Amino acid sequence: MNITHLGLVAGAITTAAGIPQVVRAYRTRHTRDISIWQPVLLNIGMALWLIYGLALRDLPLIVANAFSIVCYSALIFMKFRWDDDK
Amino acid sequence: MNITHLGLVAGAITTAAGIPQVVRAYRTRHTRDISIWQPVLLNIGMALWLIYGLALRDLPLIVANAFSIVCYSALIFMKFRWDDDK
Repeated sequence: MNITHLGLVAGAITTAAGIPQVVRAYRTRHTRDISIWQPVLLNIGMALWLIYGLALRDLPLIVANAFSIVCYSALIFMKFRWDDDK
Repeated sequence: MNITHLGLVAGAITTAAGIPQVVRAYRTRHTRDISIWQPVLLNIGMALWLIYGLALRDLPLIVANAFSIVCYSALIFMKFRWDDDK
């Protein structure tokens, strides 16, 4: 495995990390303990990463960040849908 | 702002995103709604990013990932400390 592959595997794992949180929130309909600022900040940061990836025409950056933005947007939606305590 | 600055700002924001979640978990002592897999996968992925950063001798990558690993390790600790439902 060369160093670029290492970066790709690292990116795939950190991107996949959003999935179990979205699944748990959807299953339990409970999001009280999740800070709204985590997905909001992640989305802002990853929108910038996405612009960065588009500027560099770097496909892994584009795909990873676009996917994560979808995940964390779903989490933000569920947080507002099922939680009175923001 | 050139493209490298954009990447640095993006990295700073996604790194900072871990802080409000750690603060909320510490304040409330409640972590039930957090999926344990999110911080675990993030730590595995960011450990690889850290190795990647060390291999490239890229300081922003090293600092951002080292900081995030500390944040999410604290979250994993609190999840095991204050939550019976893993």
